[in-house]
Amino acid sequence: MATKPKQATRRTSKQATARNGASPNGPRPSLTSRLKPATPPRGITLIPGGAATSPQGFMAGAVYAGIKTVGDDPLDLGILASDRTATVAAMFTRSTVKGAAVLQSQMIARRGIARGVVVNAGISNVATGPQGLQHAAEMSRLAGDLVGAGPGDMLVGSTGVIGKPLPMDKIRTGIPRIQLSPHGGAAFARAIMTTDTHPKTMAVRVGGARGYTIGAVAKGSGMIHPDMATMFCFLTTDAAVDRRFLQQALHDAVDASLNMLSVDADTSTSDTTAIFANGAAGGEEITARGPAAAQFQAALRYVTTGMAKMLARDGEGAQKLIEVRIESAVSLKEARAAARTVTASPLVKTAVHGNDPNWGRLLMAIGRSYVRINLDRTRAWIGAVPVYNRGPITFDERAAARELRNEHVVLRVDLGVGDASATAWGCDMTPEYVHINADYTT
Amino acid sequence: MATKPKQATRRTSKQATARNGASPNGPRPSLTSRLKPATPPRGITLIPGGAATSPQGFMAGAVYAGIKTVGDDPLDLGILASDRTATVAAMFTRSTVKGAAVLQSQMIARRGIARGVVVNAGISNVATGPQGLQHAAEMSRLAGDLVGAGPGDMLVGSTGVIGKPLPMDKIRTGIPRIQLSPHGGAAFARAIMTTDTHPKTMAVRVGGARGYTIGAVAKGSGMIHPDMATMFCFLTTDAAVDRRFLQQALHDAVDASLNMLSVDADTSTSDTTAIFANGAAGGEEITARGPAAAQFQAALRYVTTGMAKMLARDGEGAQKLIEVRIESAVSLKEARAAARTVTASPLVKTAVHGNDPNWGRLLMAIGRSYVRINLDRTRAWIGAVPVYNRGPITFDERAAARELRNEHVVLRVDLGVGDASATAWGCDMTPEYVHINADYTT
Repeated sequence: MATKPKQATRRTSKQATARNGASPNGPRPSLTSRLKPATPPRGITLIPGGAATSPQGFMAGAVYAGIKTVGDDPLDLGILASDRTATVAAMFTRSTVKGAAVLQSQMIARRGIARGVVVNAGISNVATGPQGLQHAAEMSRLAGDLVGAGPGDMLVGSTGVIGKPLPMDKIRTGIPRIQLSPHGGAAFARAIMTTDTHPKTMAVRVGGARGYTIGAVAKGSGMIHPDMATMFCFLTTDAAVDRRFLQQALHDAVDASLNMLSVDADTSTSDTTAIFANGAAGGEEITARGPAAAQFQAALRYVTTGMAKMLARDGEGAQKLIEVRIESAVSLKEARAAARTVTASPLVKTAVHGNDPNWGRLLMAIGRSYVRINLDRTRAWIGAVPVYNRGPITFDERAAARELRNEHVVLRVDLGVGDASATAWGCDMTPEYVHINADYTT
Repeated sequence: MATKPKQATRRTSKQATARNGASPNGPRPSLTSRLKPATPPRGITLIPGGAATSPQGFMAGAVYAGIKTVGDDPLDLGILASDRTATVAAMFTRSTVKGAAVLQSQMIARRGIARGVVVNAGISNVATGPQGLQHAAEMSRLAGDLVGAGPGDMLVGSTGVIGKPLPMDKIRTGIPRIQLSPHGGAAFARAIMTTDTHPKTMAVRVGGARGYTIGAVAKGSGMIHPDMATMFCFLTTDAAVDRRFLQQALHDAVDASLNMLSVDADTSTSDTTAIFANGAAGGEEITARGPAAAQFQAALRYVTTGMAKMLARDGEGAQKLIEVRIESAVSLKEARAAARTVTASPLVKTAVHGNDPNWGRLLMAIGRSYVRINLDRTRAWIGAVPVYNRGPITFDERAAARELRNEHVVLRVDLGVGDASATAWGCDMTPEYVHINADYTT
């Protein structure tokens, strides 16, 4: 629910459409990110073409209900559901202007169990008053009917224009047309897109034959600067997970990944992240103190980090993924604040776009995050090229500029004052970002 | 000291150059803002063509020392000084990466008395280690020699590229060449510019024949999102003002004006605001409890607000001044937070640029400032056109779009939860902003 208040949508790239096939419930897509995924931690395997329906017992489907202005990707209403009751943990936007879907989903998530989520793109159902709340509740109920769940078992997500009522007639006729399938993850990923240029899904296998799977789907490319949660990111697993541990694991993973992501510093009214754990893999319940906790946490963090990078790379108008690593900060909190501020800085983002090895802007951005730094001990790198070493140095500007021409740019700063580190992700700022957001008229 | 880490500078507009004459110490300029100034409060008169040298006993001058890359405005080193000791109050950037000039000026301002300030443009003397501190101290001393003041009487400002040493040879030969004059305000205003397209000065007369004058000069058009202080804004007055009251009055004025300004959400390493009160007008000392306090405060706030608007309008690439008024907030703090967040929002800034009457983005930005808001009582206006009234309404989108085509766009939101209000200033975001900041290569 980036709830981007504009009507037109960027077209799904032909490449992405081709990869994912034309049929809503067609074959599983290959990984849609154009970036090479990071190497997974030990014992965790990336599933090629994995999606939110990769874990056992999860199904999804989508239709075009006519809510969103059509590009060449005619899907705008989708359901992701477990075939049995699942433990659920969720995080939502901290914005004080929350969409009706967020309010509805918060109520459901509080119970700790759910069956899945229904999402529409095109209209965000934000600032729509009591009627909006009724619409969100009805959408949840209709999806529950299709899935065979009780009222209050389905979370809701709505993303798109702010301030317009949901076209409930289209949703009432649309939901019953959705065909759920274990291969529907790709269609669901496309149905929740707004200005995204390609769908974002991924899945990993944890452990061997007796292990479990974690799947994920996300969307969002503008109005992205999550705080406490993010745009849309729905996670699924067939592991059985203790409810309190699931919430804790989600928080830890999101804080280190999706909450470290900024496209344009604007936080959405509808950001939602939820994880559903249905236990279909049949293993023992994973608890905070159990032997499987650490690996589950590592796998979840790997997946949410992968989604964060896909989202950053597909930021509106973006041509590059920017990864900012802060080291030797006084505390994790300061390391994260510095990393996040650098990724959100327009002057850093434009310098990267212009291939300008301008380390002064890096230090400026760190300074305005108000974290402690010792310039006499600070070191900074653009890619592998040192550009500041306890003071200004003569460095190879052409080599640094070359690093900035990569699709994946790494900026690293050692603050020289402690031993905490953090990584954040963002994207370059291009004239295209301004065009996308200035040229659409409601 | 926007300390913009780039070497090239935007050219001074021909219009501004023509207005201000070609001679460094030539005739006083007319007001350089292209916007009509607001009507001054009662008893306060705007001085046409006023500058920082309008108050009695203030002089200024500037030369081209060869520090800054030349556009068509060959000044880069200037001094603004009082002919007698003045009471001084100052505010500086809260950034933890502070320039050497800031550290030097903080030391001087702490004493509460000073003679003036010496400023160079082109190099910011930030991240330059112990040598940078020595350079700032020497610059202060050299300026003091010229003015006939003691060591430690002159504040220092440096703005431009981060991380390069000041060319002290050029400064050593440049400072003695500066000719101070009561008509030097215009030249000083030009000498401190970096990416500004025109100089920014103003002055007001307070009271009648026995009154006093307040003058001002400012610069900055990128890396502007002041916090506790701002870019460069130097204020002068020939009133005699109690030192503690002067500091208090400066804080109050800056909090309501320069601190409510955002061009690109990036806070500089060198932001400095200072006011010099030399008592040359001969009136009684103005004290916090005296009869003249309120009027002095009103006049100062009027001047700093005028400067804030000039700075916002001249933001990098900007075509419009955006004024955001928040009403009926729970507290002044929340009103200011909401107003500031709206002016800094890329999605609001791009919508204004595109003449898109997109009130959803307004509400989104308020929501992510985390202030309290009641959407069932909220009202919003674009210019004079109501666009939200306790819920979405049908409104005249063409009339609202017309309001957005003005050079001065007013966005107003009544949060419906309290009685506090605040105003903030910013500018639209244009593709030109990205070009300016991406296309310069160090």
